[in-house]
Amino acid sequence: MDAASRIEQALYSALSKSEGPSCPPRLAAAMRAAVFPKGARIRPRVVLAVAAACGREDPAVTDIAAASIELLHCASLVHDDLPCFDDAGTRRGRPSVHRQFGEPLAVLAGDALIVLAFQNLARLNDVPKRLSALLKIIGRAVGAPSGIVAGQAWECEPKINLAHYHRAKTGALFAGAAAAGAAAAGTDGEVWRQFGEKLGEAYQVADDIRDAVADPEDIGKPIGRDLALSRPSATREFGLFGAVSHLEKLVGEAIEAIPACPGASDLKSLIALEVKRLVPKELAQSAA
Amino acid sequence: MDAASRIEQALYSALSKSEGPSCPPRLAAAMRAAVFPKGARIRPRVVLAVAAACGREDPAVTDIAAASIELLHCASLVHDDLPCFDDAGTRRGRPSVHRQFGEPLAVLAGDALIVLAFQNLARLNDVPKRLSALLKIIGRAVGAPSGIVAGQAWECEPKINLAHYHRAKTGALFAGAAAAGAAAAGTDGEVWRQFGEKLGEAYQVADDIRDAVADPEDIGKPIGRDLALSRPSATREFGLFGAVSHLEKLVGEAIEAIPACPGASDLKSLIALEVKRLVPKELAQSAA
Repeated sequence: MDAASRIEQALYSALSKSEGPSCPPRLAAAMRAAVFPKGARIRPRVVLAVAAACGREDPAVTDIAAASIELLHCASLVHDDLPCFDDAGTRRGRPSVHRQFGEPLAVLAGDALIVLAFQNLARLNDVPKRLSALLKIIGRAVGAPSGIVAGQAWECEPKINLAHYHRAKTGALFAGAAAAGAAAAGTDGEVWRQFGEKLGEAYQVADDIRDAVADPEDIGKPIGRDLALSRPSATREFGLFGAVSHLEKLVGEAIEAIPACPGASDLKSLIALEVKRLVPKELAQSAA
Repeated sequence: MDAASRIEQALYSALSKSEGPSCPPRLAAAMRAAVFPKGARIRPRVVLAVAAACGREDPAVTDIAAASIELLHCASLVHDDLPCFDDAGTRRGRPSVHRQFGEPLAVLAGDALIVLAFQNLARLNDVPKRLSALLKIIGRAVGAPSGIVAGQAWECEPKINLAHYHRAKTGALFAGAAAAGAAAAGTDGEVWRQFGEKLGEAYQVADDIRDAVADPEDIGKPIGRDLALSRPSATREFGLFGAVSHLEKLVGEAIEAIPACPGASDLKSLIALEVKRLVPKELAQSAA
């Protein structure tokens, strides 16, 4: 099965465990709406790619780790879209969860998805060492002091620490995805953090570029939000073409940071390929 | 160390792991405000009491499980107090988290506390069997389909299933606390669920009674909320004295449901004692 199908199937499988007659039907529907239809699924793709690169992969373990990472990402989107944050009306081309189901269910669907990510890991009880490694890595990527929740919380500080902000808001879950891929394959996750962080930084820059130039129909969410919300952004810092050069530099650094492993060379090609999908073609050509 | 001190220390220890220079200071403060000063700490007390009753307890494991259960309870209070749910201005005699820190940080502090509960469990990596048992029990108590998040979500349904609602909203975390106590002691958690559920039901009735009659200074939150928000409540269903009788019946059933274990008799006395603290004295006497 290809990576995309594995990820969708792992997410279906995780979500189906959260449903049943005792589940409030609208909660179940809101959780599904937060996870499907699919977005880019970049983070779980990193999990799969790193696990494959590490060799000796157990696909069942990898898929569970990948699904948990994506569930946490989806949960963060639902909460970030809430009226008290971005107040985003659309996401992935559809009404955001709170617009479809109301604010209370959006809060609860996000909460339930966070919990589901950890319930899903509990299925690894017959490989307890991998379970405990993944639990630690994934918890760190999301919570305080420096996971994505902390990243979002920097936006509520009177004085923002930009280095901590960027590392936590996007880098943490990418670092976690890379480390989780390695841990799912029974190898050391720590050596993969730098690769994941650089990749996350690159992805954030690509997102800033798309926010500034892409067609909203293409990316399924309102564009120009960073500017409107006065958020730090790479296009504001470096200009549009400067941001594209910065992106290429970061991707190079990510590739440099790949630790020695059986599949290092395939992984390098994959990363170069994936990055091309992120930047509007004409822009990459103009910047070159 | 007595139960109360063990619980506070375990919570301090868990929270301290979520802090540090990379944590946004206001997020750290909001998380602390959600956990301290202490409430009744009923659920972690159940964890400790059941673990002790099961014998062969490892206090370090029990304390971690108890702290995770209480962190999840605190997270649920922060989110339940939000303007889109109860819009509660006070909690435990102080301004609620969103009144103190704003709505965005209240959402994020709740999220971070949920994650912290699972990060905290990851500390059990040298007892992987207990770790995976606790992860499963605690995830089930909180998430979908039938944990406390699902319980809260029943309030968003056009047609409420009362049995599912009550079992999930309060019963689930009590059942989880009882099962977690047994699992922390390395014994089977499942046989403790019925005890926990009955205890949770009893606690909900006691809470309804307090909501109807107690002095708001005493319980640190606004009273009469259930009535104001048209929620199902035992006092509305049975009348005040009827609710007190119903409470006593439920406590009896909880005590009956205690499985055979080395400390069963001590546990029975403890439960009877704890229940006395929950009902205003004059009322218990009038109902008798």
